[in-house]
Amino acid sequence: MRVVDIILKKRNNLPLTKEEIHFIIDGYVNEKIPDYQISALLMAICFNGLNREERINLTLEMLHSGEEVDLSKIEGICVDKHSTGGVGDKTSLVVAPIVASCGLKIAKMSGRGLGHTGGTLDKLESIPGFSINVSSEDFFKQVKDIGIAIVGQTANITPADKKLYALRDVTGTVESVGLISASIMSKKLASGAHSILLDVKVGDGAFMKTIDDAKVLASSMVDIGNSCGRKTVAMLTDMDQPLGEAVGNSIEVIEAIETLKGRGNKDFTKLCYEISAEMLMMTGCAKTKEEATSLIKEKIESGEALDKLKMMIIYQHGNPDVINDYSLFGKAKTDILVKATKTGYIEKIKTLDVGVSAMLLGAGRAKKEDKIDPTVGVSVKVKVGNFVNSGDTLAIIHSNGKNEKEAYKMLQDSFVISDNFVKEQDIILGIVK
Amino acid sequence: MRVVDIILKKRNNLPLTKEEIHFIIDGYVNEKIPDYQISALLMAICFNGLNREERINLTLEMLHSGEEVDLSKIEGICVDKHSTGGVGDKTSLVVAPIVASCGLKIAKMSGRGLGHTGGTLDKLESIPGFSINVSSEDFFKQVKDIGIAIVGQTANITPADKKLYALRDVTGTVESVGLISASIMSKKLASGAHSILLDVKVGDGAFMKTIDDAKVLASSMVDIGNSCGRKTVAMLTDMDQPLGEAVGNSIEVIEAIETLKGRGNKDFTKLCYEISAEMLMMTGCAKTKEEATSLIKEKIESGEALDKLKMMIIYQHGNPDVINDYSLFGKAKTDILVKATKTGYIEKIKTLDVGVSAMLLGAGRAKKEDKIDPTVGVSVKVKVGNFVNSGDTLAIIHSNGKNEKEAYKMLQDSFVISDNFVKEQDIILGIVK
Repeated sequence: MRVVDIILKKRNNLPLTKEEIHFIIDGYVNEKIPDYQISALLMAICFNGLNREERINLTLEMLHSGEEVDLSKIEGICVDKHSTGGVGDKTSLVVAPIVASCGLKIAKMSGRGLGHTGGTLDKLESIPGFSINVSSEDFFKQVKDIGIAIVGQTANITPADKKLYALRDVTGTVESVGLISASIMSKKLASGAHSILLDVKVGDGAFMKTIDDAKVLASSMVDIGNSCGRKTVAMLTDMDQPLGEAVGNSIEVIEAIETLKGRGNKDFTKLCYEISAEMLMMTGCAKTKEEATSLIKEKIESGEALDKLKMMIIYQHGNPDVINDYSLFGKAKTDILVKATKTGYIEKIKTLDVGVSAMLLGAGRAKKEDKIDPTVGVSVKVKVGNFVNSGDTLAIIHSNGKNEKEAYKMLQDSFVISDNFVKEQDIILGIVK
Repeated sequence: MRVVDIILKKRNNLPLTKEEIHFIIDGYVNEKIPDYQISALLMAICFNGLNREERINLTLEMLHSGEEVDLSKIEGICVDKHSTGGVGDKTSLVVAPIVASCGLKIAKMSGRGLGHTGGTLDKLESIPGFSINVSSEDFFKQVKDIGIAIVGQTANITPADKKLYALRDVTGTVESVGLISASIMSKKLASGAHSILLDVKVGDGAFMKTIDDAKVLASSMVDIGNSCGRKTVAMLTDMDQPLGEAVGNSIEVIEAIETLKGRGNKDFTKLCYEISAEMLMMTGCAKTKEEATSLIKEKIESGEALDKLKMMIIYQHGNPDVINDYSLFGKAKTDILVKATKTGYIEKIKTLDVGVSAMLLGAGRAKKEDKIDPTVGVSVKVKVGNFVNSGDTLAIIHSNGKNEKEAYKMLQDSFVISDNFVKEQDIILGIVK
């Protein structure tokens, strides 16, 4: 087999065989195939796509390129949740404790990645003392004991995906339904969960800008997951405005705690409940939506869901007192109000720009080496469809001085106010099973 | 400027600016941009193409990446001829002496490249003693003295093209009208000729398989040449059967000498005369086709054209006696006849396979390091449309034993004989000015 022939085959829009995909992935991981041939192949894939069989084969090859987490030692149903990423997305911090309190097992290993704000791991690390570096042994013990653990990757899972993603990032080959779904699903499969709930974000603040694109990606991932023997469901959810209020790290953890206390933002609470309900249904913990919802409400009201988060904090050496005393998180030096300059309805919130302004303040990483400032960020006080008077607060900047003016300007420009009535947006846009 | 943004721009089918093309070529030649980003960009170009302005800018950037040959010291009109490559293509060895004998100046620097048979340089080197390594000073002196020189590249022309071509070759990005025309034309411009005749081959044995594709490539190259101030004309000529009879190295030189003696194969002679006539007309040496043709015939009959070849051999230290004593070339050990297995009309000659069988015998290079055997090759004795009886000789293999059986089998299978009448093919298919 010659790499150039495989590239030409894909360039000529012919499907690659299982053997050819193995040859490529194996050769790349083992440094027998140079970057420059792989990047040409990736670009050809961006143009000509991957069919169903190619996607499944690529996913399996990437899965088999590294270690797989064996969750069979854990009794009960291990379930995983993955978001394609958005602005203010702290959903896992609420959903994981909820479903754990309902009896599901959450044994979650996360990567870090780049983003407007930190990932789930960075958010958790804003809890004083919290450690994401947990040995494999302690990880399994924790899940057995309390049913929930969110830790950094200990196993060397999907090295092929790591190498490919780094290359795609610098060669304009990130956007490709086939490549994205194989990348995400290989990691999810390697993480070992029996059931996988995918939260595919749609809109200005998400990777997928349109519902049609999101549906295609969701269907592709669900198909791969189910084909590989894992129960997989995808929800399509709105990212045309920031999720909930907080966009940052410690402020997102605080919002998650508030939500677990039953005091969360309406839309964000709805999202968390819907995702949790779906996870309970897909695993057979609840037969109907009604049953699932009433179970979730019970666990919130009884404090059992919040208690799962508290136990996880204790097991991972964090200070559990943060749950009742938010001042323990520390606070950014300055709060700056961003105010409405006219009266009317919030027509649009440029979600990506809200994310970038939080990143400018220090809440996220533009480069791998960047350090996150856990206390900074943005609190968004309005939703699309809200009526505001000129002078009302639209958002609050929590700043330690970094890029303050630039972030303020960008945030101010993120809100579009209209004289005409604007309908509120629904947060749940669809489901793919 | 970021390379990834330029790749994404091309991926999104937007034209690149002059500055962006400069940034890419300059960065690549100076090793500031890695291969893997360039190969992704090249693949995006293969899919989305280059518009007229991008092609001209790319050609000029590649031209300016290296030295340019300054032919202004030479009095008279310097003319160059380039073939896109075919099987049995020894046209330059006939055309160059003809037009030189008519007063044009041929100052030709050639590269080597890969192919079924050697390039013009390899063919010339089959003449005992002939040297293609000529100093720049001697090169200019020779052109001034006798009006003709065909030598290896002394100047470091278009290093950007060399680097890009090597990358394209292994990344499935060779086929692209924009990239091919910029590659060829940057080299032609750098070689300094005032007028350029392009012989664009069409058919099974050529890079361009259809007349439509060939026309697109020819128009693109002619446009670039004329836009850059060089008179450029392209002829589209048939490569659906080997050119002339000989496919090899010394046997092709012998065929060229025979043609200069007025005893060449009919089709090949016609091609050489037509190309020479076009070169005489485009440079103003002849006003009409009739005038050009009668001048060419005169130079052949008087022996002046042959004499130009002889003088070139002498100046470049070859043995000029080869012109009258072909045994001085040496001879392959064995001649093997390939015979018709049925009676009928030659319907098709799989030209590429004829080329490959010559290469298998040792006439060409599959890899840069391969050594050429000058005496081996194939003589094709029939043309499409010829009537043959079962047992008639179709071709002769000149072998020194290498891959003999494989070459024989492939050559035997190259001839398709039909019961039905088959029309002869015309060798000249079109002209683009």
